[in-house]
Amino acid sequence: MQTTFTIETNGQGLYEFTRQVTAWVAGSGVGDGLLTLFIRHTSASLLIQENADPDVQGDLRAYFARLVPKANDPAMAYLRHTTEGPDDMPAHIKAAMMPVSLSIPVKAGHPVLGTWQGIYVFEHRDAPHRRAVAAHLMAD
Amino acid sequence: MQTTFTIETNGQGLYEFTRQVTAWVAGSGVGDGLLTLFIRHTSASLLIQENADPDVQGDLRAYFARLVPKANDPAMAYLRHTTEGPDDMPAHIKAAMMPVSLSIPVKAGHPVLGTWQGIYVFEHRDAPHRRAVAAHLMAD
Amino acid sequence: MQTTFTIETNGQGLYEFTRQVTAWVAGSGVGDGLLTLFIRHTSASLLIQENADPDVQGDLRAYFARLVPKANDPAMAYLRHTTEGPDDMPAHIKAAMMPVSLSIPVKAGHPVLGTWQGIYVFEHRDAPHRRAVAAHLMAD
Repeated sequence: MQTTFTIETNGQGLYEFTRQVTAWVAGSGVGDGLLTLFIRHTSASLLIQENADPDVQGDLRAYFARLVPKANDPAMAYLRHTTEGPDDMPAHIKAAMMPVSLSIPVKAGHPVLGTWQGIYVFEHRDAPHRRAVAAHLMAD
Repeated sequence: MQTTFTIETNGQGLYEFTRQVTAWVAGSGVGDGLLTLFIRHTSASLLIQENADPDVQGDLRAYFARLVPKANDPAMAYLRHTTEGPDDMPAHIKAAMMPVSLSIPVKAGHPVLGTWQGIYVFEHRDAPHRRAVAAHLMAD
Repeated sequence: MQTTFTIETNGQGLYEFTRQVTAWVAGSGVGDGLLTLFIRHTSASLLIQENADPDVQGDLRAYFARLVPKANDPAMAYLRHTTEGPDDMPAHIKAAMMPVSLSIPVKAGHPVLGTWQGIYVFEHRDAPHRRAVAAHLMAD
């Protein structure tokens, strides 16, 4: 069984879509199985992170902004792929460091997420984007 | 087929559990198939790394401790999620950079690991933890 | 269904093998399903990245070379696993930060890659290597 989740983003940061995913799995009729998510982009990532304190999301964004400065930062003067804007190549770099696909076992109709785990798109671009996440669900 | 591996950790570092995984797969009766592992936490990672020289594990820990300093390091003064201790937000950051799930083909009853590949939990917290790794095995 | 792709590398950088993968999937007779790739090494990674502008690949290599300097760089003097050369431990570190496995849904005989997504081996060693990528394909 397959579907596509569409996540509208509005600048860099984490966008949770756990509920869309769990609702789709619950409605599928699959009891036990395996869920796979795959983001069809090279400048945004999938991420499983804590969904209790929103400061975690802000801190993640702040950390990676410092680890991979924009192309107009002197520290990044060696970058050559800059025609799509100073946030573009850093977005590709972050996309290399964080997941493009996630696989989560499903038990009794629920992905076996831990208590604090939420599923996010981590948008690495500044401009608004519409991100497509392909989902695949297989029954045992 | 599903199970959960429990890995007791005692501070930051790599904890190998390759043998538990390969024993479970071998005992499952599955010949060819697909193995998926998923760690149900946001402050520890799954990792496949060299299991020949233990210095590799120490060096990995040392590198990531420098790349993501603790929250009481002046370089990290911008962090806001600090109430759970100086090692907590860095743990979330490291968990974003390293795998939460792994998928490994299985051939003739064995995960097709390379000669030097071992399967680890990379614990990012200082205090002892009991980590749950959900495992899913599907036959071809 | 399983196979192994062999990718010959000749120094650090990205080596695309999208066509081998899509040709194998197309020839398999599988319509909808799930594709999994797993690299059987601890000093090279799998990566999905932009395949339009080759500068992206050069910039990725340049960024990670700066993020993880070689063992003979004074900043890395703390490394202990150095007997296999100054590029070896940095290769293990990069392999921890980038994917060892990828899972991609397959629809109508094609992996659902986005428009600009290509599949690469990211070689982290300087010397030529022959890299094995195990592939698994399951029909829905």
